[in-house]
Amino acid sequence: MDIQELLRKVKSDEMDIAAAENMLKKLPYEDLGFAKLDHHRKLRSGFGEVIYCSGKSDEHLLMIFQSFMEKGVNVLGTRASMAQYKFVSAVIPEAEYDPMSRIIKIIHSEPEKIGCIAVCTGGTSDIPVAEEVAQTAEFFGSNVLRVFDVGVAGIHRLFSKMDVISQANCIVAVAGMEGALPGVIAGMVDKPVIAVPTSVGYGSNFQGLSALLTMLNSCAEGISVVNIDNGFGAGYLGTQINRLAEGYNGR
Amino acid sequence: MDIQELLRKVKSDEMDIAAAENMLKKLPYEDLGFAKLDHHRKLRSGFGEVIYCSGKSDEHLLMIFQSFMEKGVNVLGTRASMAQYKFVSAVIPEAEYDPMSRIIKIIHSEPEKIGCIAVCTGGTSDIPVAEEVAQTAEFFGSNVLRVFDVGVAGIHRLFSKMDVISQANCIVAVAGMEGALPGVIAGMVDKPVIAVPTSVGYGSNFQGLSALLTMLNSCAEGISVVNIDNGFGAGYLGTQINRLAEGYNGR
Amino acid sequence: MDIQELLRKVKSDEMDIAAAENMLKKLPYEDLGFAKLDHHRKLRSGFGEVIYCSGKSDEHLLMIFQSFMEKGVNVLGTRASMAQYKFVSAVIPEAEYDPMSRIIKIIHSEPEKIGCIAVCTGGTSDIPVAEEVAQTAEFFGSNVLRVFDVGVAGIHRLFSKMDVISQANCIVAVAGMEGALPGVIAGMVDKPVIAVPTSVGYGSNFQGLSALLTMLNSCAEGISVVNIDNGFGAGYLGTQINRLAEGYNGR
Amino acid sequence: MDIQELLRKVKSDEMDIAAAENMLKKLPYEDLGFAKLDHHRKLRSGFGEVIYCSGKSDEHLLMIFQSFMEKGVNVLGTRASMAQYKFVSAVIPEAEYDPMSRIIKIIHSEPEKIGCIAVCTGGTSDIPVAEEVAQTAEFFGSNVLRVFDVGVAGIHRLFSKMDVISQANCIVAVAGMEGALPGVIAGMVDKPVIAVPTSVGYGSNFQGLSALLTMLNSCAEGISVVNIDNGFGAGYLGTQINRLAEGYNGR
Amino acid sequence: MDIQELLRKVKSDEMDIAAAENMLKKLPYEDLGFAKLDHHRKLRSGFGEVIYCSGKSDEHLLMIFQSFMEKGVNVLGTRASMAQYKFVSAVIPEAEYDPMSRIIKIIHSEPEKIGCIAVCTGGTSDIPVAEEVAQTAEFFGSNVLRVFDVGVAGIHRLFSKMDVISQANCIVAVAGMEGALPGVIAGMVDKPVIAVPTSVGYGSNFQGLSALLTMLNSCAEGISVVNIDNGFGAGYLGTQINRLAEGYNGR
Amino acid sequence: MDIQELLRKVKSDEMDIAAAENMLKKLPYEDLGFAKLDHHRKLRSGFGEVIYCSGKSDEHLLMIFQSFMEKGVNVLGTRASMAQYKFVSAVIPEAEYDPMSRIIKIIHSEPEKIGCIAVCTGGTSDIPVAEEVAQTAEFFGSNVLRVFDVGVAGIHRLFSKMDVISQANCIVAVAGMEGALPGVIAGMVDKPVIAVPTSVGYGSNFQGLSALLTMLNSCAEGISVVNIDNGFGAGYLGTQINRLAEGYNGR
Amino acid sequence: MDIQELLRKVKSDEMDIAAAENMLKKLPYEDLGFAKLDHHRKLRSGFGEVIYCSGKSDEHLLMIFQSFMEKGVNVLGTRASMAQYKFVSAVIPEAEYDPMSRIIKIIHSEPEKIGCIAVCTGGTSDIPVAEEVAQTAEFFGSNVLRVFDVGVAGIHRLFSKMDVISQANCIVAVAGMEGALPGVIAGMVDKPVIAVPTSVGYGSNFQGLSALLTMLNSCAEGISVVNIDNGFGAGYLGTQINRLAEGYNGR
Amino acid sequence: MDIQELLRKVKSDEMDIAAAENMLKKLPYEDLGFAKLDHHRKLRSGFGEVIYCSGKSDEHLLMIFQSFMEKGVNVLGTRASMAQYKFVSAVIPEAEYDPMSRIIKIIHSEPEKIGCIAVCTGGTSDIPVAEEVAQTAEFFGSNVLRVFDVGVAGIHRLFSKMDVISQANCIVAVAGMEGALPGVIAGMVDKPVIAVPTSVGYGSNFQGLSALLTMLNSCAEGISVVNIDNGFGAGYLGTQINRLAEGYNGR
Repeated sequence: MDIQELLRKVKSDEMDIAAAENMLKKLPYEDLGFAKLDHHRKLRSGFGEVIYCSGKSDEHLLMIFQSFMEKGVNVLGTRASMAQYKFVSAVIPEAEYDPMSRIIKIIHSEPEKIGCIAVCTGGTSDIPVAEEVAQTAEFFGSNVLRVFDVGVAGIHRLFSKMDVISQANCIVAVAGMEGALPGVIAGMVDKPVIAVPTSVGYGSNFQGLSALLTMLNSCAEGISVVNIDNGFGAGYLGTQINRLAEGYNGR
Repeated sequence: MDIQELLRKVKSDEMDIAAAENMLKKLPYEDLGFAKLDHHRKLRSGFGEVIYCSGKSDEHLLMIFQSFMEKGVNVLGTRASMAQYKFVSAVIPEAEYDPMSRIIKIIHSEPEKIGCIAVCTGGTSDIPVAEEVAQTAEFFGSNVLRVFDVGVAGIHRLFSKMDVISQANCIVAVAGMEGALPGVIAGMVDKPVIAVPTSVGYGSNFQGLSALLTMLNSCAEGISVVNIDNGFGAGYLGTQINRLAEGYNGR
Repeated sequence: MDIQELLRKVKSDEMDIAAAENMLKKLPYEDLGFAKLDHHRKLRSGFGEVIYCSGKSDEHLLMIFQSFMEKGVNVLGTRASMAQYKFVSAVIPEAEYDPMSRIIKIIHSEPEKIGCIAVCTGGTSDIPVAEEVAQTAEFFGSNVLRVFDVGVAGIHRLFSKMDVISQANCIVAVAGMEGALPGVIAGMVDKPVIAVPTSVGYGSNFQGLSALLTMLNSCAEGISVVNIDNGFGAGYLGTQINRLAEGYNGR
Repeated sequence: MDIQELLRKVKSDEMDIAAAENMLKKLPYEDLGFAKLDHHRKLRSGFGEVIYCSGKSDEHLLMIFQSFMEKGVNVLGTRASMAQYKFVSAVIPEAEYDPMSRIIKIIHSEPEKIGCIAVCTGGTSDIPVAEEVAQTAEFFGSNVLRVFDVGVAGIHRLFSKMDVISQANCIVAVAGMEGALPGVIAGMVDKPVIAVPTSVGYGSNFQGLSALLTMLNSCAEGISVVNIDNGFGAGYLGTQINRLAEGYNGR
Repeated sequence: MDIQELLRKVKSDEMDIAAAENMLKKLPYEDLGFAKLDHHRKLRSGFGEVIYCSGKSDEHLLMIFQSFMEKGVNVLGTRASMAQYKFVSAVIPEAEYDPMSRIIKIIHSEPEKIGCIAVCTGGTSDIPVAEEVAQTAEFFGSNVLRVFDVGVAGIHRLFSKMDVISQANCIVAVAGMEGALPGVIAGMVDKPVIAVPTSVGYGSNFQGLSALLTMLNSCAEGISVVNIDNGFGAGYLGTQINRLAEGYNGR
Repeated sequence: MDIQELLRKVKSDEMDIAAAENMLKKLPYEDLGFAKLDHHRKLRSGFGEVIYCSGKSDEHLLMIFQSFMEKGVNVLGTRASMAQYKFVSAVIPEAEYDPMSRIIKIIHSEPEKIGCIAVCTGGTSDIPVAEEVAQTAEFFGSNVLRVFDVGVAGIHRLFSKMDVISQANCIVAVAGMEGALPGVIAGMVDKPVIAVPTSVGYGSNFQGLSALLTMLNSCAEGISVVNIDNGFGAGYLGTQINRLAEGYNGR
Repeated sequence: MDIQELLRKVKSDEMDIAAAENMLKKLPYEDLGFAKLDHHRKLRSGFGEVIYCSGKSDEHLLMIFQSFMEKGVNVLGTRASMAQYKFVSAVIPEAEYDPMSRIIKIIHSEPEKIGCIAVCTGGTSDIPVAEEVAQTAEFFGSNVLRVFDVGVAGIHRLFSKMDVISQANCIVAVAGMEGALPGVIAGMVDKPVIAVPTSVGYGSNFQGLSALLTMLNSCAEGISVVNIDNGFGAGYLGTQINRLAEGYNGR
Repeated sequence: MDIQELLRKVKSDEMDIAAAENMLKKLPYEDLGFAKLDHHRKLRSGFGEVIYCSGKSDEHLLMIFQSFMEKGVNVLGTRASMAQYKFVSAVIPEAEYDPMSRIIKIIHSEPEKIGCIAVCTGGTSDIPVAEEVAQTAEFFGSNVLRVFDVGVAGIHRLFSKMDVISQANCIVAVAGMEGALPGVIAGMVDKPVIAVPTSVGYGSNFQGLSALLTMLNSCAEGISVVNIDNGFGAGYLGTQINRLAEGYNGR
């Protein structure tokens, strides 16, 4: 029973006021229609659903993919192993897998793409995380400019690309080891820079802690940071900013 | 000698090619006119300049303020002590001080304000950092919605404000202690959430580390994090996103 | 307007269904009567209110105390400095101060006390935190048994008190340095033990981290831990358990 | 020789006073009958015994299970691997295994269940730890209400369950990543909340440290924390509180 | 009533066996005469008592000193401030103070000294901690050989002293910064080396953590470590070993 | 050429003074006969040699064992894997292996044993480290008293053994998790206590850090600490103290 | 089009000044001939190229090696696994592998060697890192003096080698565990000492953190530190210093 | 008695061989003339002596300065407070003080300067540490090129100075906050870069830890790191390298 019906029954004396008041208090929040509570799911709608595959059992994962298949929506599975992909694709041959980004995708209809997000990496070892950023952003309908291996140890490589990078609505800078890339880029553009530390490195890198601290302490303005290796989060946030910049509100 | 003049001299045979080539390689980068190298300073232009006051000597600080006074631009001084303000205002009576945010301001002409940034705090102790966020954003021309003391320990206070919060172009969520506020907000809006951990707390809070880690590990999507207590950084980044959303490019 | 009145107006045609539905969705949550959202405040009611004094300005603090004075409720102010007390007591002579626990109290009517909480400390330096535990628990209506300076370095002192300790409904064990006390107690009683690490110590104690880790890693069963130096939290939680044990539900 | 006999011999002159005094000082403590020293074992009695399986050799583990089998008591084996279960069940077919919680159980007679403990999780990945909580509590005779996957990133899911959650005598809140769940729940109920951080997450999660710190620093009242992934400890403590609340003292 | 008397009453029928048994179980442990429970206090007896002054109020401290004065025993007060000393010595003029080691002493009769403990430091800044070691050991009756400023950065200074150092029964090696001294000494002697890290240093020293870790990880055999700056602990332990070596058992 | 011969040549004019002076300065230190530089090796002599097996290749390890075999000395190999043992024992059948302590031993003649070291553990999981302590001490000629599984969670088990423990010349207390055992023992004996933290535990134990910090921060006197899991170091140091106490100097 | 040609066209009126200016600003930096931007690559030229093998796929790695083979330059592959070597050498039989340093080398013409770098280690377990240092330095044309297993636990071994060590232009000191070696050496020579902490050790070593901190906190002058296990970095830096000392500038 | 005299006495039969051998073994090492043991002091000789002032008492400090004054050598006092300077200069008016670098200097004769060290800083707040570097290097006879405030957040400022920077024999790069400067410089020069992290920053900077980790993890080659804020160490090491490059050996 929805609220309208309830109010109608009160009006028509089918339900007394005490009973109605009681029901209103007991209804789960979503039934009260607080649309905003679920806005975040809307961002995806029209583009597809997302599944965090890591740690899920093969059977469980397949079930989820099948349920989305039946609805005919696009699906993005992150942090999937090759073994998980093989298990899923045996039943759902439409599933595609990218071993670099560890993403399983089922695309029924390509989303239209808008604006632009630049995704930069310090080194080649950061590319897996960068691809998770890029493919997540593309899945949600952003154009992506890939600018890989432009770390500060050979900074001229970065400079020759600054012209195109600075055209994007926002920049995602992915770097491990010393993690200096986002700060250098933010010093040269006037767009938001999303910094993604990676766990690439060894020794006093401490699995990405070094790069994380570097990014949080950057003296350049316009930087913010997501968790170590969190490519999906950066791709999602980049899309939010890209949509704002493009005046997109087709939700 | 700028590039145009150099090329003109080559053309007119006043300079030979080898000499010209040599000079080109030696010119400092800025002379080459890489405009984007300084884009970040443009963000402020038309709005004023920013000074990080903490650690600067009184005399040095005054000199900087005076130099900007002469140019007639608005000035924002962050992390200023009451003593620094008194020293400056003895000479520059136009200077205003807000002890809460520790900001010294000299405003010649109010900037026009656009869009909206919501600035939320978990508790009342987070307000100094939040005011630094808010006043920075206002200085750069953003409208600011203040929603203070809506932390998750009494989460109904937050919910009664979600309608207005979700109207903003982006949300800055400021919280110390457990730092859960940004994650809860990000679960209810579809706009970028900038998380600012504060050093408010004691014991295993470790001067803001607890809140910082909470925010980096949030399961909600659309969050990114700045350094502990970095109100200025969040206000600056929020303005960048707000401007993108408003299609502002009056730079 | 409350829900009953709204429903009455729908029934009497004073308000149409669409308008009523709209208002229901907009009402702040507390107006919807979700009583449980505020249950935690009820725990105090009948006993008084609590103010975290640290970091509050003198004027602000006085204002809060005065507002409660007017309502005639008991008030507990934690982490108050002597200076804050002097400022407050100049206006409110009824205010009492305990420099050990740094608590300001205004008691209009002594709460009736039930059950028993044992509050133990490892050393004499832990007593300030233990007194915050004890006085918080007493403020909320628990009887408190103080057993101080019974640390494991002279464990026979503890044993001679175990008979009385084990009579309590729950035990709060406060310890700094090595923090072994809660584990030893939990090995000898079958009641919940709330462990409070203190920042007492030096060197590799790291401001209470050592005691905190010891308590989290205790091999004994029935222990849980609160933040370093969090005497108020332990006194509050102890009261909740004590009330459950006494079948108290006078809320 | 027990104390009674010794005293009898003194009385009957079979032993002189000096010899008796000497013996008294030498007797192991347990022989002196300090019953409370072993109270904690009583909590289990009537319900069964507990074995921490992790790290024990197959042969050793089987031997322990067999020894309890002969006494006809219920047994709970925590942190058991599938391989350990297979080794044990080959000899003791009565043994049951739950791969989710990694618990081996041998139940001769179902314990009567009293009261209620609510066990909540933030996500689905926290369920293994939550099941260890739940099954431990059930083993010791508590009714358990499972409320899984109600984390703060989609907080409306939690709210629709608050009515039932708040009926329990205590709540165990299990969460990884940001670990905000216990604080949000404690802000809405007036019962003790036992927070269990899990090692679920990656990057700056640092194997559960992030969630642990969040929980220790919660601003909500009535929370205490156990070690990362310590489901058994939370189930045991929850049972202690549940029994207190139900006035249970059948030990 | 002591045990002897109790047994006598049993024997003489003044008390029945049940009552006696009951009393025996209730007597505090110390009354049962478990001499070893208090052995550690005996180490001091004949030599005097020890007071940890840091954090004690002036009045409290004076009271303790006075109580020992009346018993005529030697007293050692560690970590005492100059202000504490002045407060105490105003009433007890016999009190002496050493600002280097921050020790207050009241010596009624010099203890006879036996054996030898070598106390070495890496630099001159480690001397305050080393003096706490040395004066503690002397207070408890050990001869002390002071070998200061023989750190590994100028290792020939150490070598010229190895002949005398190796005569001691044990060596206490006190060092801050890199903390390498104990390992070098342990490689050259066949006596126990007690390593005391100090908080001397800056930057990545982290208040003594660097030296602490160095000492724990030493490849040399025969080293063990006490807490950062814990001079008293090292002096006490050194005395225990020195007494064992001298066959001392005059307790 | 040794020093005597050199001096003889100077005396007999076979070598002039300048040449002799030059040679003296160039001679490696050991040739100068600084006997104490190598004293630590003497501790073992007459008892055998020690090999740290972990990380050594099979071939390398075998070669070392064979070289000692030829000299007919006893050998102790620590941290050896079963695979290493099998490789070695195929060639040297005299080699024995204890999988618990991971020690390979070749004993030609049993060392005479003196004095006594008590080796205690908190739990059964600490036994592998404790056995490394015990067998090391026995290898070097100490009698060892094993007192296992007497942790503070069931502290009465420890008390019933205190009489025998306090007879030893020193006590090695091995404990993981909370690591409280050494502090409790040191509070009851007047002998040196060597604390060995183990990496046993999980979660916020951080691979033994929790136990390490507990032990360093113990309030009891007479404790010092070795590295996490460093059973060999504790056994070696314990032997040094045991020998001192027994007046042993048969080196 | 290079700069010369561009200038020529301006001169000959084939291109107007505005177009030329525009092109100059757009040219990638390297085309502008900022020779110094790539100086660091020159260090290698004439000596060969370097590949960081760890984490590269077999196919990718082979492709890189083949591309260098075709150019006929020497190649150094660091952190290569045996499996990677087998894959590469199946196609490029000229490839050599050293399992100790995990280096793959292809040497077309031996580089001439100059000067001297001393490479010292504390223990035998540090040799793999030291070999990476030594072979890197040799690859770049430095003579290397290997002085292994001279750690401070048996410091006389080091002293007998100091004469030769002090002849080198710089010293690389490699040590794990306590990491004291570089400080001791720096106290005895007047040449730069490059300290390389290794991850050798266990327990509170924390994968090399202990050695790293020791080295950063050394009281000796003339030390600097590279990342844990970073043998390549130390060999490269050592070569730079060695070349400076030899007046080498054949680049 | 020195060695020559001893040998002479042996030759002349004034001393027998056994006595001579015994004396040789007992002589302190420095008497044996191991010149290299003290080489590090020679670096300073001809230039003056160095005093670490921090933590020294005024009287002690003055005494040391006076002793050097009498010898007529130049003196460098590091980490000196203004108060220390005033105390010293009251007696020694020749003493000069630089409040920026906190250096007290007494210069009798200016050292001749050779070669060049470039000292760069990221920001203006790093200048105090950089001045300690520069003035130390100048004190020891190096020319210094100061290039301040060229951090990566405005990287074009750095580039315009690269031509002069790359002329130096080595570069000292001083940076706080994110600490990226050394890595960027090392990517553009082929000289050794000494990285000095400073404690400048706040929040997750953790007193310089962030910059320290960044520098240790730099992907650029040719970098090594000294302790946080260790300007003296960098200036000393820079001088060693500068002297090697200039072929200086005037010691």
